[in-house]
Amino acid sequence: MAFVQLYIDEFLSLNSPSYVSNYISISFFTLALTILSSFFIKFIFFNNKELPIVSFDVQIPEEAKPHWKGKRLPIPSLIDPNNPEIIQSYCPATGQYLGSFTSFNKTQIDQSINEALDAKKEWSNSTFKQRKRVLRSLSEYILKNQHSIARVACRDSGKTMIDASMGEIFVTLEKINWILKHGERILNNSNRPGPSNLLMFYKKAQIRYYPLNGLCAALISWNYPFHNLMGPIIASIFTGNAIIIKCSESVIWSSNIFIKIVKNCLIACNQNPNLVQLIYTWPNVADYFTSHPSLSHITFIGSRPVAHHVVKAASVSLTPVVLELGGKDPFIVLEDAKNLDQIASIIMRGSFQSAGQNCIGIERVIIVGDKNYNYLSNILFEKVKLLRLGSDIDQLEEIDMGAIITNQRFEDLELRLKKSVEKGAKILYGGHKYNHPNYPQGHYFSPTLIVDVTKDMDIATEENFAPILTILKADDTNDAIEIANSNEYGLGASVFGENWKNLNFVVDSLKSGNVAVNDFATFYLCQLPFGGCKGSGYGKFNGEEGLRGLCIEKSVCYDKFPFIKTQIPKPIDYPINDEKKAWNFVSSLSVSGYSTSLWSRAKSVVTLAKNAS
Amino acid sequence: MAFVQLYIDEFLSLNSPSYVSNYISISFFTLALTILSSFFIKFIFFNNKELPIVSFDVQIPEEAKPHWKGKRLPIPSLIDPNNPEIIQSYCPATGQYLGSFTSFNKTQIDQSINEALDAKKEWSNSTFKQRKRVLRSLSEYILKNQHSIARVACRDSGKTMIDASMGEIFVTLEKINWILKHGERILNNSNRPGPSNLLMFYKKAQIRYYPLNGLCAALISWNYPFHNLMGPIIASIFTGNAIIIKCSESVIWSSNIFIKIVKNCLIACNQNPNLVQLIYTWPNVADYFTSHPSLSHITFIGSRPVAHHVVKAASVSLTPVVLELGGKDPFIVLEDAKNLDQIASIIMRGSFQSAGQNCIGIERVIIVGDKNYNYLSNILFEKVKLLRLGSDIDQLEEIDMGAIITNQRFEDLELRLKKSVEKGAKILYGGHKYNHPNYPQGHYFSPTLIVDVTKDMDIATEENFAPILTILKADDTNDAIEIANSNEYGLGASVFGENWKNLNFVVDSLKSGNVAVNDFATFYLCQLPFGGCKGSGYGKFNGEEGLRGLCIEKSVCYDKFPFIKTQIPKPIDYPINDEKKAWNFVSSLSVSGYSTSLWSRAKSVVTLAKNAS
Repeated sequence: MAFVQLYIDEFLSLNSPSYVSNYISISFFTLALTILSSFFIKFIFFNNKELPIVSFDVQIPEEAKPHWKGKRLPIPSLIDPNNPEIIQSYCPATGQYLGSFTSFNKTQIDQSINEALDAKKEWSNSTFKQRKRVLRSLSEYILKNQHSIARVACRDSGKTMIDASMGEIFVTLEKINWILKHGERILNNSNRPGPSNLLMFYKKAQIRYYPLNGLCAALISWNYPFHNLMGPIIASIFTGNAIIIKCSESVIWSSNIFIKIVKNCLIACNQNPNLVQLIYTWPNVADYFTSHPSLSHITFIGSRPVAHHVVKAASVSLTPVVLELGGKDPFIVLEDAKNLDQIASIIMRGSFQSAGQNCIGIERVIIVGDKNYNYLSNILFEKVKLLRLGSDIDQLEEIDMGAIITNQRFEDLELRLKKSVEKGAKILYGGHKYNHPNYPQGHYFSPTLIVDVTKDMDIATEENFAPILTILKADDTNDAIEIANSNEYGLGASVFGENWKNLNFVVDSLKSGNVAVNDFATFYLCQLPFGGCKGSGYGKFNGEEGLRGLCIEKSVCYDKFPFIKTQIPKPIDYPINDEKKAWNFVSSLSVSGYSTSLWSRAKSVVTLAKNAS
Repeated sequence: MAFVQLYIDEFLSLNSPSYVSNYISISFFTLALTILSSFFIKFIFFNNKELPIVSFDVQIPEEAKPHWKGKRLPIPSLIDPNNPEIIQSYCPATGQYLGSFTSFNKTQIDQSINEALDAKKEWSNSTFKQRKRVLRSLSEYILKNQHSIARVACRDSGKTMIDASMGEIFVTLEKINWILKHGERILNNSNRPGPSNLLMFYKKAQIRYYPLNGLCAALISWNYPFHNLMGPIIASIFTGNAIIIKCSESVIWSSNIFIKIVKNCLIACNQNPNLVQLIYTWPNVADYFTSHPSLSHITFIGSRPVAHHVVKAASVSLTPVVLELGGKDPFIVLEDAKNLDQIASIIMRGSFQSAGQNCIGIERVIIVGDKNYNYLSNILFEKVKLLRLGSDIDQLEEIDMGAIITNQRFEDLELRLKKSVEKGAKILYGGHKYNHPNYPQGHYFSPTLIVDVTKDMDIATEENFAPILTILKADDTNDAIEIANSNEYGLGASVFGENWKNLNFVVDSLKSGNVAVNDFATFYLCQLPFGGCKGSGYGKFNGEEGLRGLCIEKSVCYDKFPFIKTQIPKPIDYPINDEKKAWNFVSSLSVSGYSTSLWSRAKSVVTLAKNAS
């Protein structure tokens, strides 16, 4: 490892003198160098082993096309006042009506489940080659249709194209390609150390991974309508499972298009498209779904109040649940942090991407020391006030930030800000909902910068899930850690600084499921297992743990050698001849295996021999 | 690997010509050879690094001593008719009264939890050296006090000394010593592959393991009062956690003694004994415990009806639960299985150990082919009828099988057997409760052999948890698999045969969490992660997954090289200058990272460069 690092050091210093500051040039250089070699190796030696990628098409609806002029709802709402079974879709950035969808009833849920169970029979016996073909074809489709996919996501969620590109497409492609690269190894038999007892030296211990008996289910949130839907589907397809996705009521329109992409991909690969199912319901029918006995695994991405219902419903069929319940992620800038301007840019992206509606969005910037605090507050103020709101798929001007999924939380957010100001915080910019002149029916909240926040204020304890940049001051590293840990969430975190020992100390001290050092949210992109602790939920998806978690993990123990097998030793064979002898035998077995005294072990072997017949 | 195997082949054939049939002699040989070398290596090179083992003492009560003459309860019961708060302990083999214990109320539960939380503060910062010292001292105590521990377990559960030796002591020692050997490696930082995207080559991905924020809790069953209590304690101590054990109402007397062993061990190692807590309650207070917000992890070992309550209660605080809910383990003998006499001995032990009260006990013997079926049925009949019942710590005669924890299930079992006989099964021996002449107040069930059972009979679908050996005939391997999978449980399984391909096929086809090949229950002893699928629960304890499951698994992402850091590329830095440029940039990022076409990647690098400024 050290050797490799040395090599890279030399290599970089020889060829790229501008590396210190120029991330992009290094990337280009690396790309140019590695693309050729990786393609050479891959295509010449390995490609013939893979099934060819297939292409397929999905109709992109008018609503996602440029210059679409859709009818605006006077008062945009998911509820259709004329029909309680209907869930309405509309664009939160413009208020334009997108469609009406009938909430699934119990019979329809059963039907989706039965179709998926049926399709799973064949798929659970599929080869990795077949599974990879589906994922590779999907990856290729996404790459070729980035623009359309992003527009569909923007139309339904109100986000910007750049937000969609980073948060919907790039992360999905990384997930697929990471699994293509590492998934098979992860699901291959995993050998484990056998027993510690020398007497059992002939036993081999192994874990094997199989598709679940029933179905995967994922109840997903609306903030990344494409990525949140694709994530569980990708994992479920690769593990040989079938999946039912229950999308949020807020993004049914786009979810229907996105599921179509997967279904068409499956068809193009000669697989049964019923393997993936999309359902949507009003909350009153949701328990029927989550307590369904055909589910073997539930992933829930959403809020704590709903999580209680989901787990309670899952207790009926005793289905395991992975809970991802949001966070209040701290972003710590230590006293020795360098390049504050670059850090400011990262803070801006981490706070305002998807208008702050990001479960690992930056919810609290905690800055150590007056100098950093003042400097960063100033740059951030200059940046925040320049942010422009709107629907960038509908207008030609430059737009930085999109809409909020609903206007129902605006009063709460304003009150939360107001109460914090009463306690001493200062709003430098924004702090209220925003009435967009072009989109009066759109849901917008002004990008907000609030400073001098302390850890007890509502704005620092409640998850905002909104474009509110909240800055707290810390006296020193320990104080920053204390502030960071001072609430009920524990999902993600970032820490910036130069001293590795110090950074490491912060990483170890943070009560959270994920930490990025000198970066934002990279633990998610890296395909490390993702999940929180404390009030942020439990269980993991992504990565090794995520894939294996969707499997029956079967512990298998067998004999290493064909000629040595376990036999019941004579003294303990039923009926027991002589219990005293039997006791001496079994208790000596323990001593011979586990005593720390050589003498005791030696004696025990003699006792074993004496009592063995 | 092949080389090592070859070496062992040669080695064994030279030195041990009798190896094929003589398991014990090989064991002795191996022992003699390895003990010396392992001690040499360990004591000369490594031992000085470890903290010394400490010894300590625990008072063994009169009730566990030989020749104890305790008062027999006229009608043994957990309930004291005079005081509803009291839980009575008694010996199920003799009906002797052992003590009265007051069910914990909410205040007492809170107190136990607070004491544990307090003790955990220091322990969660303990070193592996300190944790290992506790476990090594515990292991040494157990080894030196095997007899007393076994007698305490026998007195409270009614089992035999041999059952206690194998099922309580040996497995506990293996668990401790396996963790001593492998635990530190398992909890060290685990490096993972970074992102698949070449642009992110400078990111390092790692998982780190920390003690939980709150407490571990384990609600355990009565069938192995020592091992079931020690298992979660060992894991919790080693992972730097504190634990509250809620023992079964049936074994409070012994659990109090066993917890004392751990507490005294902690005291002897200068640690706070409050780290481990024992509580016991009537079911009406149990929900208060399982919904407690101070718990971070619950392990439940028990029955399905109770599991629903536990998971529902845990949904209040959203605490993750591992469920181990018993099984209906098949034991498949394939047509080519050899050494049927030895297999019969294994079946006897797997069926009658702890009087069949074993969650991975053999519940269904499935035999392929008439020849094997008839031969095995005959030998087993000869063996079963020789089994003698009683309390072997109270009498001098030889005893094979002990008591049943309660007489409350006897009528159900008899009815189940009766209904199966009506459907065509034959009871060759037993089939009813047994009134022991010496222990009229004891709870005994006659060892039972029932043959010609089919998969639809109650005796083949319901978990018996009793000394009932149930034999089913299968036409062929596929039929055996179908029978094995034909019920709602999926915990353990065994398969016996000679053809490795065939055995492997059965292993892969069984819907269960654990399989032993040509052996019984070794997957458990091996410290493979243990847990079931289908109706047998979810989650794992033991092994790598078990230890890591008791930790905050923190995903950490950091830079490999100090001189390369992420910067927000200029085109997507807020405020966004030129959205078209920005889109070209980010969409090219995806193509450059994930396209399968070399040409597309090359083009994308050019686009990136064009739009980078």
